[in-house]
Amino acid sequence: MKFSNSLIKTRKEKVKEADSINADLLIRGNYIDQLASGVYTYLPLGLIVLDKIESIIRQEMIKVGGQEVLMPVLQPKENWLKSGRWETVDDLYRFTSYYTKTELVLGPTHEEVVVPLAKKFIFSYKDLPKYVFQIQNKFRDEKRAKAGLLRGREFLMKDLYSFHEDEKDLDLYYERMAKSYQNIFKKLEIGDKTYKTFATGGSFSKYSHEFQTESASGEDTIYFCSKCKVAVNKEIIGEQKVCPECGNKELIEKKAIEVGNIFKLKTKFSEPFDLKYLDKAGKEKFVTMGCYGIGLGRLLGAIVEVSHDERGIIWPKDIAPYQIHLVSLGNSHEVMEKSNKLYEDLNKAGFEVIWDDREESAGTKFADADLLGCPIRLVVSDKTYEKNKIEIKLRQTSKVDLVDESLLIKEVNKVLGR
Amino acid sequence: MKFSNSLIKTRKEKVKEADSINADLLIRGNYIDQLASGVYTYLPLGLIVLDKIESIIRQEMIKVGGQEVLMPVLQPKENWLKSGRWETVDDLYRFTSYYTKTELVLGPTHEEVVVPLAKKFIFSYKDLPKYVFQIQNKFRDEKRAKAGLLRGREFLMKDLYSFHEDEKDLDLYYERMAKSYQNIFKKLEIGDKTYKTFATGGSFSKYSHEFQTESASGEDTIYFCSKCKVAVNKEIIGEQKVCPECGNKELIEKKAIEVGNIFKLKTKFSEPFDLKYLDKAGKEKFVTMGCYGIGLGRLLGAIVEVSHDERGIIWPKDIAPYQIHLVSLGNSHEVMEKSNKLYEDLNKAGFEVIWDDREESAGTKFADADLLGCPIRLVVSDKTYEKNKIEIKLRQTSKVDLVDESLLIKEVNKVLGR
Repeated sequence: MKFSNSLIKTRKEKVKEADSINADLLIRGNYIDQLASGVYTYLPLGLIVLDKIESIIRQEMIKVGGQEVLMPVLQPKENWLKSGRWETVDDLYRFTSYYTKTELVLGPTHEEVVVPLAKKFIFSYKDLPKYVFQIQNKFRDEKRAKAGLLRGREFLMKDLYSFHEDEKDLDLYYERMAKSYQNIFKKLEIGDKTYKTFATGGSFSKYSHEFQTESASGEDTIYFCSKCKVAVNKEIIGEQKVCPECGNKELIEKKAIEVGNIFKLKTKFSEPFDLKYLDKAGKEKFVTMGCYGIGLGRLLGAIVEVSHDERGIIWPKDIAPYQIHLVSLGNSHEVMEKSNKLYEDLNKAGFEVIWDDREESAGTKFADADLLGCPIRLVVSDKTYEKNKIEIKLRQTSKVDLVDESLLIKEVNKVLGR
Repeated sequence: MKFSNSLIKTRKEKVKEADSINADLLIRGNYIDQLASGVYTYLPLGLIVLDKIESIIRQEMIKVGGQEVLMPVLQPKENWLKSGRWETVDDLYRFTSYYTKTELVLGPTHEEVVVPLAKKFIFSYKDLPKYVFQIQNKFRDEKRAKAGLLRGREFLMKDLYSFHEDEKDLDLYYERMAKSYQNIFKKLEIGDKTYKTFATGGSFSKYSHEFQTESASGEDTIYFCSKCKVAVNKEIIGEQKVCPECGNKELIEKKAIEVGNIFKLKTKFSEPFDLKYLDKAGKEKFVTMGCYGIGLGRLLGAIVEVSHDERGIIWPKDIAPYQIHLVSLGNSHEVMEKSNKLYEDLNKAGFEVIWDDREESAGTKFADADLLGCPIRLVVSDKTYEKNKIEIKLRQTSKVDLVDESLLIKEVNKVLGR
């Protein structure tokens, strides 16, 4: 992408309507645009990052047997009455069709859709287990949207629902999913900051688990056990502050952002919707369920919260909008020709490159490269051009080198771990 | 995909709640599931087809310079008041947040979002032209949802918005987009049945154009001119029934399904939102706009309407959920081993294969293969196995052949045009 063709118009000043670091940097860098409180447009740069996160999550869900579907946003009131959640869920957007007078809900989650759906493909033990997931918009009538992409009113989520013969099978899959989540967070380079955290299991399970990413700006507090590497969230830690896994009492307090959760639903939804199967002995039993969520937008926001400096975002290499930010300085014929050739060569070699071909000062171009946060910055100038060198700077370490043109692709591959 | 692992449970009987051929075949084949009137879940088979259609459209939009964004579903009332459409658009879902009392709209189209957004990246003639598109859910409070995927309340759309210095530039892009649409319909194998059709341009343009696909079950009527190959829709044909392009009076009446539209908005939205640019002389002018829509679900439904027989769907090869439907007959060790090897070899060779590995009769398996509608059916049975032959049947022509095992991949490639 050439900068001059793009929609990118960065802002130098802090965004006054931004209530968080992620909103400020993502808006200034033209990743997102705020339409209303808690409601954002993904601009081209932001959509590329979102798509890359989506692709990493999708691959992992397929590895654990997930089959992808796409359920509707519009859900009938009847289903929510049946589950009993019409009365209990506060932040539902509810409304009535002008023409048909039907009462509708904008889905904040999809148990009320997937469970009646499962009745159409689960009949006997031979149909179990099954794993169904989607990546789709959710809606919540938040009292107070805040913290940029961390707590929005409209947000993309991955939700997977698992269907089992019994709790033993659910327990095995639940652990498999926990590992799968850890793979995802590792690929997104927040693995070492993200803790599997004991959380409340509601009225039907002792615990559920959240995945909490350590961050100065998180809205949650967790207590980390350095002995067994688990954490406990604030709601269930109790006054004694004891690790539920090993009994350790010396827990470390951390503020954190919830980036995912896994939950044993057991028969909470299969009972009201009468989702049963015939076991091997021909006896009818309720299907046992689990559900597993990751908010994609929130994850994107969390990554910005934990990976930035005073100059801008520092993207993990697998989700950066572009791997290489090519800067040409000055507009001499030689520099533009050299930059153009380099841009084409890098594209041909399969790299994702944004080329800042604008007539702007070195200062402006360098500030924008730092703000946008691509892993590798390359500079072509009269100075480097004469020596057949390219300047390479890594966003993560700020390390600068002059590399011989002939060795550039090798060096870039090394940085990207290819 | 092995049939036994899939979610597919086909239905033999006509679907009594289905009001159209596309709903009946897509529900019976487990492509979609109806949650409410005009509201559908895409099941794994349906989502694969939808994703393939999406990918064909996205590629074409990128070819005409489109930059992809993702705008919100939730839109503030203020923007609709500003454009004047709060009062005039009938089928808006409107509602109020319980907590904030904010009035919201579920987007049926996105001019009210994209025009204020464009004010942030269009300032001078140097920023023009720009083309922004998204592929995203739309919502319409339809008086009467009908015809399966053809007229729903929630549906996926591609909408592109173009921004120009003047009408001359808009006109050029409009023609380029019309060609791009024709490419899309050609790739989807409905090019020869789809007519660029004169439609009403509203109050600010003489004409707009719809793309109408000839179908016995379409809700629109068009008048086709065999001289200049254009058509005119019912609303604007007038009593004389004259071709607006060449004056021909012998037009042919056809019922049809609208699968896309292109529209010159001119300054209809840039005026109320004050979207201006500085021209070369430094003078402020309103930006001139066009918009271009394709409903993906409707397109999928339309393809089923025009491409099926009494036994089921006949998919165009580039959007079939699987290229090959492999059927093993009988459960002898030899047949299952041979089928498994063939399944693996075909997957390795890069083909998309669904293998019906169930313990079902030949009749049931053949009926399901016809209903699902993949282009190539392969049969492995005791009979063919002994002769080192595979039976190959084409869904489109019903042509059956016995092919020597060693020549199979060559034959399959030939059918798929690879």
